[in-house]
Amino acid sequence: MPREFTHLLRPEEAKALFQKAFTPRPRGTEVVPLLEAFGRVLARDIIADMNLPPFDRSTVDGYAIRASDVADFNEALTIAGEVRMGELPVFSIGPREAARIPTGGALPSGADAVVMQEHVRLLDDRRIQLTRPVAVWENVIRKGEDVREGEVVLRAGTRLRPQEVALLAGLGRTEVEVYLVPRVAVIVTGDEIVPPEHFPRPGQIRDMNTYSLTGLIRGLGAVAHPYGIVVDEREVLLDVLRQASRTADMILVSGGSSVGERDVVAEAFTALGATIVVHGVAIKPGKPTILAIHEGKPLIGLPGHPVSAMVVFDVFVRELLEGMLGLTLRRGFGKEVRAKLARSLGPAKEREEHVRVALEERNGQLWAVPIIGKSGVITTMVKADGIVVVPVGGAVLPEGTEVDVRLFD
Amino acid sequence: MPREFTHLLRPEEAKALFQKAFTPRPRGTEVVPLLEAFGRVLARDIIADMNLPPFDRSTVDGYAIRASDVADFNEALTIAGEVRMGELPVFSIGPREAARIPTGGALPSGADAVVMQEHVRLLDDRRIQLTRPVAVWENVIRKGEDVREGEVVLRAGTRLRPQEVALLAGLGRTEVEVYLVPRVAVIVTGDEIVPPEHFPRPGQIRDMNTYSLTGLIRGLGAVAHPYGIVVDEREVLLDVLRQASRTADMILVSGGSSVGERDVVAEAFTALGATIVVHGVAIKPGKPTILAIHEGKPLIGLPGHPVSAMVVFDVFVRELLEGMLGLTLRRGFGKEVRAKLARSLGPAKEREEHVRVALEERNGQLWAVPIIGKSGVITTMVKADGIVVVPVGGAVLPEGTEVDVRLFD
Repeated sequence: MPREFTHLLRPEEAKALFQKAFTPRPRGTEVVPLLEAFGRVLARDIIADMNLPPFDRSTVDGYAIRASDVADFNEALTIAGEVRMGELPVFSIGPREAARIPTGGALPSGADAVVMQEHVRLLDDRRIQLTRPVAVWENVIRKGEDVREGEVVLRAGTRLRPQEVALLAGLGRTEVEVYLVPRVAVIVTGDEIVPPEHFPRPGQIRDMNTYSLTGLIRGLGAVAHPYGIVVDEREVLLDVLRQASRTADMILVSGGSSVGERDVVAEAFTALGATIVVHGVAIKPGKPTILAIHEGKPLIGLPGHPVSAMVVFDVFVRELLEGMLGLTLRRGFGKEVRAKLARSLGPAKEREEHVRVALEERNGQLWAVPIIGKSGVITTMVKADGIVVVPVGGAVLPEGTEVDVRLFD
Repeated sequence: MPREFTHLLRPEEAKALFQKAFTPRPRGTEVVPLLEAFGRVLARDIIADMNLPPFDRSTVDGYAIRASDVADFNEALTIAGEVRMGELPVFSIGPREAARIPTGGALPSGADAVVMQEHVRLLDDRRIQLTRPVAVWENVIRKGEDVREGEVVLRAGTRLRPQEVALLAGLGRTEVEVYLVPRVAVIVTGDEIVPPEHFPRPGQIRDMNTYSLTGLIRGLGAVAHPYGIVVDEREVLLDVLRQASRTADMILVSGGSSVGERDVVAEAFTALGATIVVHGVAIKPGKPTILAIHEGKPLIGLPGHPVSAMVVFDVFVRELLEGMLGLTLRRGFGKEVRAKLARSLGPAKEREEHVRVALEERNGQLWAVPIIGKSGVITTMVKADGIVVVPVGGAVLPEGTEVDVRLFD
């Protein structure tokens, strides 16, 4: 590997190259109870084995009638019965007959509409008169109007929101087959890094990447296995990598911001038997990124700077993890917003720049305020709402330019 | 209470009235380990008890120098030592001296800049020459540049994202005081409702609201206690309400779409000793909404129709729960998108209409496609990405009108 990154791949080139070497997919499926299924990704298409609702259902309190028969809505109708909730009426409705029905009640046979009780005059105990005409099937949810038997109602690859889980409940699915969740090992290297519970000696700094990466992994619905801090020695790192590769589906190694450390990570990957596909990407921050494969599992070397590690996660790891989660049907809305730059950015000469921005609304206009700070400064991420990308080779983006802001989750 | 909702409050009126009766706030705090703190809401301001970084730190591999001394950058500098990671150098840098330093290394005393190794020529084992000038503090994160000792770095009321947790780790907080999570009881009433594991008899329908409401509650970071299905009898419901009010901080009762059921819910609330503040709101769907208070806890009556229950949750319950979570510092970006209506909507004559829409992008323009369907039809929510509100008393919103779409989480 070149020590000085003489040739840096563009992010798209790096992604394309890695995609040729690795196709992210779930490692299997499991069946979970419905109340545990929120946020999980459906592993099979769901085909309805019944109609929903299973019967014609009133949407209002009122009277079930035969609208097709009521030529003159002023005519008196005879009350033939009353529908009880949760029961199929045993009587039927003949011409010029009506039955009292509650919201949600099943229409008696013969009825083809419901008139709201507000639009009915009670003539006596047994007779009503409509005060306005009613269309056929008015105030009725038809049998199968929500879901038709045999219909594919949900597709594999969908992340289950509350409404999808509710629909599964409505169809009687008390369990659901979802994709297994990927397990991601998080390893932090760096001889200057100490765990948060230690008081750093002069020259030392506390570990932040275990926490930011664990949070990002969990935020996507995957499981993080933090391995803690590993000293910058090839054999020690190799040993931890071997351990992690036994159970993890993906391994993230953060650290290696200095050339020597970078070499240790790349060497340990190679010693493990991994194939290094990408080493060095033209992205700022994030240059030292390593994308490797070992036994069908991605091994990602992330920079040690806390901001850089989060940006590289966002650019490379997120997509891989979504693939491993089985998330093929994505709802991408709300992940980006348009805003005007509050300050000029760029030009990005050699590396695509991922600039942290805070969003501010002034007089109905959204402004993206670039947050200046080095990639080791975590508070810049704390102040930020998202990222603006400045592509390589473009001109300066002047103040007021409309840009897309990629929002943090 | 009026059986026929002769006077319906507008949603803002209902909210204002309820706000006078109830101020949502967290019921207390707890201390959790940092790795369990993601998504929790900070209960106290965090004041830094140290500088971050705690020392001047190099951001590159190179040589620490005294930039303030290097008048002519072409002059030869003598290598005075090498900085090791995780150690404070014991030597210092004098005029015309340099020390090899890795990324993240601590600057030796005397040094005030780092020159990248790419911009250095090695003259021999002991001397280097710079190939370009270096500014004072170039390639250095100054001590306290990220966080200054004594500074308030995070405010109470912030939801902890990965970067906030990382910052806490950097400051050595291994535990963090967060607000207790509200517990929300979910009760479903309706004589026609059976649990998903039952095969519905004619006239019966399976419970969906337990699932949609549990998902919405959990999605906000609160805890749902599903109580299952309760028959539409005042005494039975009262008994379950009494049970629930012992442990829950909020109670949701869905059901009561028919007048009789609505009365049972309102009567049970009153029999419990609750004060009904709002009964009936001019919102479509969602008219039968009940907002009540009992012993300082909100009791919310939601409509039985699955779509209506979700809309009322969104309009009334979400805000209350966010207050009870202690979430005072919200990041609201990405919760709404602007889109053009693909079909005309409105006018809304008497009730504010909350219309489900699917989003479609065509040639870079986002379109909101209204999804037509009754409020009992859950698949309309499955197809939808969000909600467009049509205010009361306005004109028709013609096709092509720019609207705000409130996105589902």
